[in-house]
Amino acid sequence: MSDDICRGRKPVIDLLTKTPERCTKLIIADNVRPPLLDELLSLAKSNGITYQISAPEALDKISGGEKHQGVICRLTRAKSLELAEFLRGISASSPALVVVLDHIEDPHNLGAVIRSAEAGGASGVVIAKRRSALPNDTVIKTSAGASLRLPLIQAVNITRTIETLKENNFWVVGLDGQAENSLFAEKLPERCALVTGAEGEGLSRLVRESCDYLVKIPMKGGGVASLNASVASALGIFEWARCVL
Amino acid sequence: MSDDICRGRKPVIDLLTKTPERCTKLIIADNVRPPLLDELLSLAKSNGITYQISAPEALDKISGGEKHQGVICRLTRAKSLELAEFLRGISASSPALVVVLDHIEDPHNLGAVIRSAEAGGASGVVIAKRRSALPNDTVIKTSAGASLRLPLIQAVNITRTIETLKENNFWVVGLDGQAENSLFAEKLPERCALVTGAEGEGLSRLVRESCDYLVKIPMKGGGVASLNASVASALGIFEWARCVL
Repeated sequence: MSDDICRGRKPVIDLLTKTPERCTKLIIADNVRPPLLDELLSLAKSNGITYQISAPEALDKISGGEKHQGVICRLTRAKSLELAEFLRGISASSPALVVVLDHIEDPHNLGAVIRSAEAGGASGVVIAKRRSALPNDTVIKTSAGASLRLPLIQAVNITRTIETLKENNFWVVGLDGQAENSLFAEKLPERCALVTGAEGEGLSRLVRESCDYLVKIPMKGGGVASLNASVASALGIFEWARCVL
Repeated sequence: MSDDICRGRKPVIDLLTKTPERCTKLIIADNVRPPLLDELLSLAKSNGITYQISAPEALDKISGGEKHQGVICRLTRAKSLELAEFLRGISASSPALVVVLDHIEDPHNLGAVIRSAEAGGASGVVIAKRRSALPNDTVIKTSAGASLRLPLIQAVNITRTIETLKENNFWVVGLDGQAENSLFAEKLPERCALVTGAEGEGLSRLVRESCDYLVKIPMKGGGVASLNASVASALGIFEWARCVL
């Protein structure tokens, strides 16, 4: 699978300024000098976009011989939406599941969650714009194409997203290993935002506090057992499907 | 994490002949000649062991300066058991879950399944000796160490293993996308062998026919949705935990 690309100084700077969420990687030729170089690096850093400095010949190859002026962006082909746009596209009261990912950094995990979300009947997946895997080709591949079909919402601020979801009649349930109640103990709400955290760290404090309630996945294995983030999310997603669908 | 190793002609040939399941990789120096070379390659192939031909200096480095005579095996540190030994170690009648993997080739998937199996309270995981990922370092890492704690049973023949499990009072449930009934429709048996297949292919015909019954994971997504093999296994494992524990 090859990405779409955007090439040339003005088109790339426009893209990085207006719709940085579409850019999965910035490639800069090693003969690009300041001030253009500084501007590109600063835009990449402020938007959490991976960049790479390469020989001009490498860019020639990526652009297939088209003029690129030393800068190319790889673009996501995933279906990316703003939250408001996503909410307009779904019913305001019917059962629905939104999976909210509080910084999942591994693209394989992100792809696996999107795949499970589609299979479990979720309406969309929210990912944080920073400190998260972006919907690049690895994500598309690991999701078995689900990231090209299921709406992905890139959120600047996860806690603000959670507040908006609450205003739109969603109950917000956080998956957290420290929670008292089991995921399996009570029915999940029909309109549910399921919040899962990064592997290891779990939910960040602010995100945890903004959830309506927290549940844990009950585990055996003498206190050392743990679950992969994508497995934990899938258990939550299918628990919702089983309660609601 | 570094593997344990076995070095030297006689020790390696002994190992490959008597306990090939302990070997995760065979490394042969490029100055090893027939007939020793042929014997090593033939043992590697007949046991499905990955091998690599390297410069003698590479082997010096792996052996940490110890004499190796041009042959080194990397050994699994996972807890590997024969089926009979495993069955002697568990109660003959109490609730128990055994996860049976019908050829999972991706070591990340194998590691993820072992991790979920431990977290869900399974007693052990059966893997096929051929056409399967071996419990190497990738598996240990992806399992978050669970493969060093949970018994792994390497089976020459999965259908024969299923028959033995039946004789030991296990009900054998196959996870299969083509099944009529849902995983969530009825309680799983207390003594359960949960059989899951390779990604894509699902269960092989003989294995499918040897199960007591088959269940599927009900899926949305307009017929294109599918689940990662490790996610599907985890849903089965935690369904058992929820029914039984």
